[in-house]
Amino acid sequence: MNTYDLIIKKRGGSELTKEEYSYLIKNYVAGSIPDYQMSAFLMAVYFRGMSEKETLYLTEEMIKSGDTLDLSNVQGIKADKHSTGGVGDKTSLALCPMLASVGIKVAKMSGRGLGHTGGTIDKLESFPGLTTSIDGERFIKQANEVGFVIAGQTAHLVPADKKLYALRDVTGTVDILPLIVSSIMSKKLASGADIIVLDVKTGSGAFMKKEEDSFELARQMVSLGKIAGKKTVAVVSDMDEPLGFAVGNALEVKEAIAVLKGENEGKLRELCLILGACVLTEAGMAESEAEAIKMLKNCIEDGSALRKLADFVEAQGGDRRAVFDTSLLPSAPFTFELPSPKAGYIKTIQADGIGRACIALGGGREIKDSPIDLSVGVVLHKKTGDYVNCNESLLTIHARDKESAKEAEKILLESYAFSDTAPEKRAFIRGIVR
Amino acid sequence: MNTYDLIIKKRGGSELTKEEYSYLIKNYVAGSIPDYQMSAFLMAVYFRGMSEKETLYLTEEMIKSGDTLDLSNVQGIKADKHSTGGVGDKTSLALCPMLASVGIKVAKMSGRGLGHTGGTIDKLESFPGLTTSIDGERFIKQANEVGFVIAGQTAHLVPADKKLYALRDVTGTVDILPLIVSSIMSKKLASGADIIVLDVKTGSGAFMKKEEDSFELARQMVSLGKIAGKKTVAVVSDMDEPLGFAVGNALEVKEAIAVLKGENEGKLRELCLILGACVLTEAGMAESEAEAIKMLKNCIEDGSALRKLADFVEAQGGDRRAVFDTSLLPSAPFTFELPSPKAGYIKTIQADGIGRACIALGGGREIKDSPIDLSVGVVLHKKTGDYVNCNESLLTIHARDKESAKEAEKILLESYAFSDTAPEKRAFIRGIVR
Repeated sequence: MNTYDLIIKKRGGSELTKEEYSYLIKNYVAGSIPDYQMSAFLMAVYFRGMSEKETLYLTEEMIKSGDTLDLSNVQGIKADKHSTGGVGDKTSLALCPMLASVGIKVAKMSGRGLGHTGGTIDKLESFPGLTTSIDGERFIKQANEVGFVIAGQTAHLVPADKKLYALRDVTGTVDILPLIVSSIMSKKLASGADIIVLDVKTGSGAFMKKEEDSFELARQMVSLGKIAGKKTVAVVSDMDEPLGFAVGNALEVKEAIAVLKGENEGKLRELCLILGACVLTEAGMAESEAEAIKMLKNCIEDGSALRKLADFVEAQGGDRRAVFDTSLLPSAPFTFELPSPKAGYIKTIQADGIGRACIALGGGREIKDSPIDLSVGVVLHKKTGDYVNCNESLLTIHARDKESAKEAEKILLESYAFSDTAPEKRAFIRGIVR
Repeated sequence: MNTYDLIIKKRGGSELTKEEYSYLIKNYVAGSIPDYQMSAFLMAVYFRGMSEKETLYLTEEMIKSGDTLDLSNVQGIKADKHSTGGVGDKTSLALCPMLASVGIKVAKMSGRGLGHTGGTIDKLESFPGLTTSIDGERFIKQANEVGFVIAGQTAHLVPADKKLYALRDVTGTVDILPLIVSSIMSKKLASGADIIVLDVKTGSGAFMKKEEDSFELARQMVSLGKIAGKKTVAVVSDMDEPLGFAVGNALEVKEAIAVLKGENEGKLRELCLILGACVLTEAGMAESEAEAIKMLKNCIEDGSALRKLADFVEAQGGDRRAVFDTSLLPSAPFTFELPSPKAGYIKTIQADGIGRACIALGGGREIKDSPIDLSVGVVLHKKTGDYVNCNESLLTIHARDKESAKEAEKILLESYAFSDTAPEKRAFIRGIVR
């Protein structure tokens, strides 16, 4: 077997075997297949695609490239969640405590990532003192005792994905469905949970702009998860505008806390309830979606979800008081309102633009490992379809200085479109793939 | 402009501009575009193709990547010839002296290359003492005085092609028509001749197996040559079986000399006459193909072509006597006849197989810069369509030892197919593209 022949085989449109994917991944990770051969192979995959079988073989090999997380010593049903990413996506921060408070074990690895804001890890660091450097033993212990733990992703989990992703990122081979599926699912399957819930975004602010592509991604991930023996379900939801109201690390933590306090009944809460209900029904802990949603609403109303977040923050070395008093979280020195330039209905809020504004404020990173400001961001007051008066505030900018606020303001204004008539309402939850 | 965007643009099927090819080639040669991005781009070209314009832009940029040969100080009409390569292809060795003897200046760069035998440079080194390390001044002087000079290709001529070809070779991106066109034509256009004649092979032993692909390659090369202001013509000829009778370096030199002596009236002579006639008509030295062929036959009959070869050998430091007495050329210590395993018509002689046998004998190279044995090879006695009796010799093996001969014999026997009836004759010259 040699790489050249495998490139030619894929280029010709043939299916590769399990052994051939094993050869490719093992040798690529070992460095004996050079990047220039792998990138030619990946570009051939762009044009020729991969069968479901091939995606499975690739995913399995990627998992084998590193360590897997052994959660067998964690009692109960373990769930993991993955979001395909979007603007203002703080779902994990609200959903995980809710799940843990009703008895699902959430023992999760998470990342920092590049983007409009930091990743979950960055957001969690808004809690003074909180660490996600949790070693194996402590990780299992906290999962059992608190029911909820989040650690930073180690380099040992699916190293093949790290190496492949870095190559795809610079060779125009990121947006290839089977490669996205195997990248996400290799990490989820290596993470040892019984139930995987996939939060798939669709729309202008999402990785997948078209609804049909998002559903196809959801379908392929769910199919692969099931073949691998995991209970897997995906929820496809709107990312044409940012999720919820806050975009920015600490600001998003505050919004998640508001959901857990029962003070926020918007889209973020809606999404958490649906995703949570999927987990509870898959776990057999609820007979119906309605019953599951009732359980989740209860844990908000009785304060147990909020206390679970506090227990989690404390267990990871953070200040639990910040959960109850969010003024202890980082806050920006300056706030500015952005007055609406006209009266009318908000036709669109480009999620992408809001995200770029957050980067301009210093709240995101475009380059790996660059520092981010947890305090900055924006809080929307109006969402798509809302009526706004001229000069009424569209949003509040939280900034570290006037200059960055000015820069953000420009991007923000360009992100809005208005209309004289109320725009057609589109469903927020587009569908569930089981 | 950045490489990533250009990959995406080509991947999407768009035409790249002149400036974009300039960016790609300049930066690739300079090392600031890594191989892994270029190989992804090349694979996208495999699927999306390139327009004629793009091929021109790429070719022009490749030429600019290095030096060009200035033949302005060579008096008269300068011609260059390129063969797409095949088995037993010794055309240059006979054609160039013929052209030079009728007054066309042949000032050529040539290569060693990988393959069943060495390249023209290797074959020429069969003449004792001959060198192709001819520097610029001597090159021009010999072109003017002898009318015929061949130098080894310098690293300074189209370095972009060298770098690109090495990458294509290991990434499954060799057989891409516009890339083949620009690889060949960049070198020809950089070599300063007025007339370019392209010897395009077609069939099982050729790079292009299908006749339609060979004609398309010929058409594209001719079109590009003309756009670049050169008189360009291509002859498409058969390479289902080896060209002529000899396969092996010194053996091929002997066959070329036999043509120049008027002792060989086979396909090699036929091809040389057609290619030569194309040059003479393009040069305006003959009114018709018939007249041109008469001129070329004359230079064989009156011995001037053979003397021209001798003058050339002498000018390049070789022993001119070997032209008249080929026993002075390298010869193998052992010869073996290969008896036909059956009686019948020869249906096919796989050129590829004959070539592989020559490599087994030590006459070719599979790895760059590996040494080759100039003396070994095979001389066919029968060609496709000939009748052969059982045990009648099919060919003579020229070997350095019995072991290599045995190995070659096995490959050779597998290369023949027989039939009870005479196979349909196919034209040797398939067409001329002007």
